[in-house]
Amino acid sequence: MTRAATGELLVVGLGPGPEQWRTPEVEDALTRATDLIGYKSYIDRCPDYPGQTRHISDNRVELDRARFAITLAQEGRTVAVVSGGDPGVFAMAAAIFEAIDADETAREIIVTVMPGVSAMQAAAARLGAPLGHDFCVISLSDNLKPWSLIERRLTAAADGDFAIALYNPASKARPAQIFQAFDLLRAHKGGETPVAFARAIGRPDEKMVITTLADADPATADMATLIIIGSSQTRLVHRPGAAPWVYTPRSMPDSAG
Amino acid sequence: MTRAATGELLVVGLGPGPEQWRTPEVEDALTRATDLIGYKSYIDRCPDYPGQTRHISDNRVELDRARFAITLAQEGRTVAVVSGGDPGVFAMAAAIFEAIDADETAREIIVTVMPGVSAMQAAAARLGAPLGHDFCVISLSDNLKPWSLIERRLTAAADGDFAIALYNPASKARPAQIFQAFDLLRAHKGGETPVAFARAIGRPDEKMVITTLADADPATADMATLIIIGSSQTRLVHRPGAAPWVYTPRSMPDSAG
Repeated sequence: MTRAATGELLVVGLGPGPEQWRTPEVEDALTRATDLIGYKSYIDRCPDYPGQTRHISDNRVELDRARFAITLAQEGRTVAVVSGGDPGVFAMAAAIFEAIDADETAREIIVTVMPGVSAMQAAAARLGAPLGHDFCVISLSDNLKPWSLIERRLTAAADGDFAIALYNPASKARPAQIFQAFDLLRAHKGGETPVAFARAIGRPDEKMVITTLADADPATADMATLIIIGSSQTRLVHRPGAAPWVYTPRSMPDSAG
Repeated sequence: MTRAATGELLVVGLGPGPEQWRTPEVEDALTRATDLIGYKSYIDRCPDYPGQTRHISDNRVELDRARFAITLAQEGRTVAVVSGGDPGVFAMAAAIFEAIDADETAREIIVTVMPGVSAMQAAAARLGAPLGHDFCVISLSDNLKPWSLIERRLTAAADGDFAIALYNPASKARPAQIFQAFDLLRAHKGGETPVAFARAIGRPDEKMVITTLADADPATADMATLIIIGSSQTRLVHRPGAAPWVYTPRSMPDSAG
């Protein structure tokens, strides 16, 4: 019995968009990969190297893409699976390990996860420092988890007075849930809580809306939007000729405990 | 009345350690800054450019450092305030905006926050994908917030069945709190929950301990340690000749809601 050649799986994060936010580790991985796998919008961001095969996936089933990457690696290829942001935050890394978990033959593949700047970090940097203290990170997509769990987590995030970063707030198939999420948060948090809708940060169509929980229009969000909702301590700093800074102080009064 | 020259404040994140995890934006900022401000261990990681002034701070009061950076920027200097990881995650960005909030004269300074790979992302990448689904990020330091708030947040994080990243788990001045935190989490989460102590990831003294909540020894943690605690769904994937992968699946059974 011949044993399959063992290739390499590079699970890379391109960051939010611009090259200035992409790590040298990821740049190097994109250079040495024999195969790139990912959505068209991510593959389009990668430099085009001769001899490299680009597998553009429009398949929304991430697990299929993970299995395909494993198969190529088992054939001895050096496969870069590309995500936007950080592959470890609502992206391909979890799907890759789910596929490896389900496939005994995949355990010997050399896998390297390469972190990247995630959308919440880019949004936070543009805003000031809204995630400067304790925070929660929640995906609003119920494609793979029950909505009841999302409600439980939003409630817990409010109970803990965390700042909150919301990923995947809305899509054409799920236009109503972001309204439900805001209704829930409004029942638990003050109306003056700062809210930011950060869309496509670092890309040409970047757009930022800074408002309050009482005034926020959930319809502002689409799939390219990252929403940040403050804790009870999050503040605005107004300044001349520009949007206010948004930050969460490091210190909390004793009464907030 | 003469008006002070307006300089620039660059709030930069060096990432966890190695240059491969440092963004080009930050490299460029370190090149063009006239002044660097930060702890010695961070300043030591920056390339040495002629004509640049390095202000090494051993002062633990971050607000003093922020005010000093503002003063230099108001004198027309280009000041890089350096943090490890991401400046927006338990680092200098919040202190900078606190200082700007308290000083009307500081509102016209040009401030750019430059994100970096945070310690939790480096640790998650090494482990697999433990933060692949919803998670909370909590600092255990009670230097600036009451311990009761930390307990409230740990409880909320457990109630929401989030994966949890713990920053600043222990120091010489606070050796006991990490034990209290583990006692609290053990009362709320299953003993089989995966736990990882990730120390100095990406640096020469990198060390990783993977265990369970029941078996974890809180004394494993020091100030250079980032702790990741799984959700109820977080799993280990054992593999030959290496530590197991740790990942949190993207999907959750309906019963978990």
